Amino acid sequence: MSEQVITYLKENREGLLEKLSTFLSIPSVSTDSKHKTDVVHAGEFILQYLKEIGFHSVELQETNGHPIVYGEWLGATNAPTVLFYGHYDVQPADPFDLWETDPFTPVIRNERIFARGASDDKGQVFMQLAVFEAFMKTEGKLPVNVKVCIEGEEEIGSKHLYEVLKEKQQQYEADFAVISDSGMVEKGQPTILYGLKGFTGLEVTVTGPKRDLHSGIYGGAAKNPIMALSHMISSLKNENEQVTVDGFYDDIEALSDDERRLMNEAPGENYVNTIGITETTPEIGYTAKEHTMARPTLEINGMYGGYQGEGSKTIIPSTCTAKITCRLVPGQDPNRIQSLIATHLEQVAPKGVSVNVTKVPLSARAYKMDPHHPLLQKAANSLQKGFGKEAVFVRLGGSIPVVEMIDQLFDIPVVLLGFGTPEDNLHSPNESFPLESYDKGMEVLVHYWNEVKEYKR
Amino acid sequence: MSEQVITYLKENREGLLEKLSTFLSIPSVSTDSKHKTDVVHAGEFILQYLKEIGFHSVELQETNGHPIVYGEWLGATNAPTVLFYGHYDVQPADPFDLWETDPFTPVIRNERIFARGASDDKGQVFMQLAVFEAFMKTEGKLPVNVKVCIEGEEEIGSKHLYEVLKEKQQQYEADFAVISDSGMVEKGQPTILYGLKGFTGLEVTVTGPKRDLHSGIYGGAAKNPIMALSHMISSLKNENEQVTVDGFYDDIEALSDDERRLMNEAPGENYVNTIGITETTPEIGYTAKEHTMARPTLEINGMYGGYQGEGSKTIIPSTCTAKITCRLVPGQDPNRIQSLIATHLEQVAPKGVSVNVTKVPLSARAYKMDPHHPLLQKAANSLQKGFGKEAVFVRLGGSIPVVEMIDQLFDIPVVLLGFGTPEDNLHSPNESFPLESYDKGMEVLVHYWNEVKEYKR
Repeated sequence: MSEQVITYLKENREGLLEKLSTFLSIPSVSTDSKHKTDVVHAGEFILQYLKEIGFHSVELQETNGHPIVYGEWLGATNAPTVLFYGHYDVQPADPFDLWETDPFTPVIRNERIFARGASDDKGQVFMQLAVFEAFMKTEGKLPVNVKVCIEGEEEIGSKHLYEVLKEKQQQYEADFAVISDSGMVEKGQPTILYGLKGFTGLEVTVTGPKRDLHSGIYGGAAKNPIMALSHMISSLKNENEQVTVDGFYDDIEALSDDERRLMNEAPGENYVNTIGITETTPEIGYTAKEHTMARPTLEINGMYGGYQGEGSKTIIPSTCTAKITCRLVPGQDPNRIQSLIATHLEQVAPKGVSVNVTKVPLSARAYKMDPHHPLLQKAANSLQKGFGKEAVFVRLGGSIPVVEMIDQLFDIPVVLLGFGTPEDNLHSPNESFPLESYDKGMEVLVHYWNEVKEYKR
Repeated sequence: MSEQVITYLKENREGLLEKLSTFLSIPSVSTDSKHKTDVVHAGEFILQYLKEIGFHSVELQETNGHPIVYGEWLGATNAPTVLFYGHYDVQPADPFDLWETDPFTPVIRNERIFARGASDDKGQVFMQLAVFEAFMKTEGKLPVNVKVCIEGEEEIGSKHLYEVLKEKQQQYEADFAVISDSGMVEKGQPTILYGLKGFTGLEVTVTGPKRDLHSGIYGGAAKNPIMALSHMISSLKNENEQVTVDGFYDDIEALSDDERRLMNEAPGENYVNTIGITETTPEIGYTAKEHTMARPTLEINGMYGGYQGEGSKTIIPSTCTAKITCRLVPGQDPNRIQSLIATHLEQVAPKGVSVNVTKVPLSARAYKMDPHHPLLQKAANSLQKGFGKEAVFVRLGGSIPVVEMIDQLFDIPVVLLGFGTPEDNLHSPNESFPLESYDKGMEVLVHYWNEVKEYKR
């Protein structure tokens, strides 16, 4: 059955690439108000396409920002319903002079499509829609029921998505979700991304004297806020890269040998070459891959106090500040972790200074699926068919907020089926997407919808 | 004998104040090239005054910067020779709008002379010259032999003083030196300053990855340079405010009970009120007064790395830097201390980062006289006579580079006879000098020259 659909995609390749090109030409930069109309045009492009394919109830759902495009096709009896999420907005393209060709005039060269949004995420959204078109044109129906949610604010923090999903929870109800807004560990290596980290953060300011002091007159009387904060910060982690905050590792599930094997088998960066470090420094007992993918982290993102100019200035500064964020793993509650760290900092604060801890309002829980979950095993099968290569299973050290939103509101599996590559230059000049990912990725999707049509929740 | 000289000063008070006013009117701002001529004019004022008094060999000693004024009177047989040092340059006066009256139009109000340089150091230099004038006008001679060295670059680091003193070492040879460029612990409280701290400094930069990294992708692989530097910095001092660098306290003489008593008896600031700290945090076993005056310090003057803007930015920064300076006490060799700290930092550097330590080129040894030294006991007697109050003995946590220069080149006692007060606003708008210090200070100087005329080296 998949053959016919794949043949359609091959036969119509040129027309579909032209249509993608039209979509990519719309400068739907969500953060820039002078592109407001363009953003709406990109949403209308999706709206129109969904209608052409044969989706029902297609509508622009207005928000206080950019609209969300909704559409559904619910004609598959005895089949699950999938919620497909993507976004039609893009990052700004500047600095323009670093682009070899215009960011909004798509061009194919070196077997890649160059354009802002080619990979993130207009290209990957388009692939899904083209596959739906191919099913409808050849079989007159989709293998599964589909609800489509394509937003226009992902690049500005999905500001209104949560309230819309919550308000229209029944409309968006599904058995599982699929998102194609991520990548593979390397070009041509199909990848199952089965876990994401959560996030929390704090800012801590230590204040000593009310003004900067002469170090000769006051050194020995006033506690130095930088020294105080250094003591506090260094108390957060030991030399084994273990976080020493009481309770930080509570509730974390142990990493199974099976998962460790999956992670360590996946291709990865040679960090010493790519980021120029002398050696990796993972938590004791874990490899760098295991730590980045599956163990929580605590990083100091910035720290500043006192004199920063040339030469020396003999002062005891009045204040010193540090910005702290954590990436969390399943089991860790972001608010609890935030409170544990705040309490720790307050407890280790030395005398002679006052400490002010601010909790960063943004936070997210980690997300993880069992790599043996049938929806992922079927994805692995489909990837194997499409790319002719076995998929690797990895977790990501980063966070994708919409995954947590869907998890929290609907409590359904979220399958991340992404085809980007590390060379795509997301958010940078000369964004591109490999034609290999485009062609093989669509084949994977065709197989996938056929594979999951008998999935029962 | 002193009576006659003091009477002269009283009878000529108005004329002398007018003459001081003329001197203070010259905007001799050494750091500002548009005042270059004014600086020379101030030097010439001194030159002229020395000639009027009857000094010999009076000359402007040219340097690559501003000139040094030299003059000598060597007619006192069987009396010691004193080198009197001062400076005729001043700090810039801006911000001008914060001055209640023009900085270069001296005004007397509230029993104070307001003008830039009134206290630092033109006013105090003038007092010495007026006293020499009074001796010459009444007795036809000075009680001691005097060599005068008044420089024009003190406010810009005495850039050429050392080379001139070294080149003309024989010309400047003396039995002891006197400097009037300091202050008293409080107005009306005569103060013997018998010790100064030395100085050394370093800058340390920790580099991890070659660029800022995404904390989600690389957290767990790359060592965080801020965390690394925090560990290194916090290892320099323990919670008892003791420096934990190996050998840091070697060669330091123990503080005698006698000195401790002197320091703790001296009036001092209520730090909680004046600088707004919750409590003082001196080194364990010492009071805040003892630590600020007589124990070495290690301060972090600045530290910075990573993101400093609003909100959070989830990066592992590429670098983090700290600026470190120490105030040293007698026995500590600045270069040795610098090396000890550098070695310590390199030894505690964690793996995964590279560490670069730069030694600050400026350094100075501490200076201290025995408070029982006859030159200081005679100063105490003179202060008692002038102010009608017993002098207190203190050491200063700060450094006066010229003291170390004279100590190093001539190996003679340096007596600091200063009459400034904490309310003088040195280096700030509305600098002033109390008339009480002016009048009583000159009486003290008259007594002092008579007291020390029989001093033998």
